Amino acid sequence: MPEPTSTAVITSPRGSGIREVARLAGVSIATVSRVFNDASAVNPDTRRRVLERAAALGYEPSSLGRNLARGRSELLGLIVPDVSFPLYGQMISGIEDVLGQRGMSILLASSHDDADRELAASRHLLRHAVDGGIVINSQTDAALPSPRGVNWVHVSPEHGIWPCRVELDNVAGGGLAALELLRAGRRHAAYIGAPGRESAERERGFAAGLRRDDLAYRRAQGDYTELSGTQAADRLLEEFPALDAFFVAGDLMAAGVLRALHLRGLRVPDDVAVVGFDDAVLASLLYPRLTTIRQPAYEMGAAAARLSLQLLAGLRAEPVTFPPELVRRESTGPP
Amino acid sequence: MPEPTSTAVITSPRGSGIREVARLAGVSIATVSRVFNDASAVNPDTRRRVLERAAALGYEPSSLGRNLARGRSELLGLIVPDVSFPLYGQMISGIEDVLGQRGMSILLASSHDDADRELAASRHLLRHAVDGGIVINSQTDAALPSPRGVNWVHVSPEHGIWPCRVELDNVAGGGLAALELLRAGRRHAAYIGAPGRESAERERGFAAGLRRDDLAYRRAQGDYTELSGTQAADRLLEEFPALDAFFVAGDLMAAGVLRALHLRGLRVPDDVAVVGFDDAVLASLLYPRLTTIRQPAYEMGAAAARLSLQLLAGLRAEPVTFPPELVRRESTGPP
Repeated sequence: MPEPTSTAVITSPRGSGIREVARLAGVSIATVSRVFNDASAVNPDTRRRVLERAAALGYEPSSLGRNLARGRSELLGLIVPDVSFPLYGQMISGIEDVLGQRGMSILLASSHDDADRELAASRHLLRHAVDGGIVINSQTDAALPSPRGVNWVHVSPEHGIWPCRVELDNVAGGGLAALELLRAGRRHAAYIGAPGRESAERERGFAAGLRRDDLAYRRAQGDYTELSGTQAADRLLEEFPALDAFFVAGDLMAAGVLRALHLRGLRVPDDVAVVGFDDAVLASLLYPRLTTIRQPAYEMGAAAARLSLQLLAGLRAEPVTFPPELVRRESTGPP
Repeated sequence: MPEPTSTAVITSPRGSGIREVARLAGVSIATVSRVFNDASAVNPDTRRRVLERAAALGYEPSSLGRNLARGRSELLGLIVPDVSFPLYGQMISGIEDVLGQRGMSILLASSHDDADRELAASRHLLRHAVDGGIVINSQTDAALPSPRGVNWVHVSPEHGIWPCRVELDNVAGGGLAALELLRAGRRHAAYIGAPGRESAERERGFAAGLRRDDLAYRRAQGDYTELSGTQAADRLLEEFPALDAFFVAGDLMAAGVLRALHLRGLRVPDDVAVVGFDDAVLASLLYPRLTTIRQPAYEMGAAAARLSLQLLAGLRAEPVTFPPELVRRESTGPP
């Protein structure tokens, strides 16, 4: 059969293999290359012979040379505040599953919730020629560098200014928390928030939900850590001993609230009901099991990966907003 | 100044930029390439002019072309059972910090604790021409493919046969748990284990520690899930109501044991003491806070990354064994 001469040649970065495969299979290097690039014009017998010889030699084609020819690295950059935070781990799982089906891989970098480190991470990823990028919980309000038209998709960014983004409807989440505490017959609620846009939106929805029953609420500020939850609950209970419900902006802070209640001898949910936010692994392991507002983190990651693929294909991508979901457990009691 | 002709030329994968930078800076493409490769022979004024023009054009050099010339991708493959498991997240953080200091990046793939998927993940990473790889909790006893001499470093592998590995001294961890329960005055202990080598080693150390005081122990098997911990504790307490201590092979199972004790009205640690294993985020958030045997996950990840760099540099790498550490909290009470 004729051997076309215009095929991209695969080069293994350490220079081994393809010549040997071609020699043993009795074909040209270009034919070996076409077999591994899935070009359709290779005779089936030839293809089989090449694959057998390649397997016998332990030859693995390198995507480095192939992708250079194609102008694609098949890598997607991912900037995440901290990979050891379970909510982000679930998002990464969702991203990875979608990309894996397309043969693409995640190149990982951490931002530690810092705008400067986020920018540095983006430059680092771009030096590896990523085809696109996803940023979880971006803290910057400046656009990340975008050479070669690389697109960045944002998941739950602090600033809602990015055209390609995936986020939760936090206002609706706050509304669900209010409804649940009202359902449990509570009239004296408090909100424990944290800095940033997400907490402010959760509070807005919570306040609106309580207002429909003409109820006000107390408030205190934490920082998403367990300790800050304990301290905020202690302050509120000192000043307002009649409180019978807490809505807390994150499950880790809610763990701290539960501890404050245990140490004061208050029963949950009999004396005080608690609703958290996130539903990563933690909530269901607390004692009592925590009622919380679920962020579909895996699904949000998967949606961000699909947006990235759309942009890579040159398609338009619209922002995606996920609805939150109430997960009722022991800390608000039975209906 | 003379322009050498033997310098590797940076090519941007979408073909943009370097020519334009060279033209605007009034230098050759090879000079632009040398500036971005940090070759020392570029005149400082020329270097500054090139960097200014590159910044103005938003030009980012691609490592794809550069690394192809160098024969290195600067990528390290990482195979992890599940990124959303906090212990692995901490290991990834340690790996990432060490590699980041060397300008290298992590390419991520998941194995879901399955030997076949681990092999598929390794092939996927190799197609991206990783320079080396790290496998967390490998389940296979067959060597992963190693074209071009790529080395795989194992962290806590199920089979202790790999020359390059990082692991915890699990036997010593079991010994620490026995000592802690003896210190707390317990004489009727049980072990709740799970399948696999790590649990078997933890039990071996636990048994040896108790034997020094001529004590036997009861045992039951779980599977590292919370529910299996609750069920195993229930079975043991039905049969042996006099039990006053549990050593549990993982913190998640220990959360289930605490729940079983709460539901039976048994006080922790007054009636029953509990020691877990891992000390990822969870242990300190349980009620009561869980005494546990700490795996230094971040440090183990960092050690694996350093082993990988040694192997890449052509140096020998010896296995690294980390000592475990007792973290005493509320579930075994004050000394």
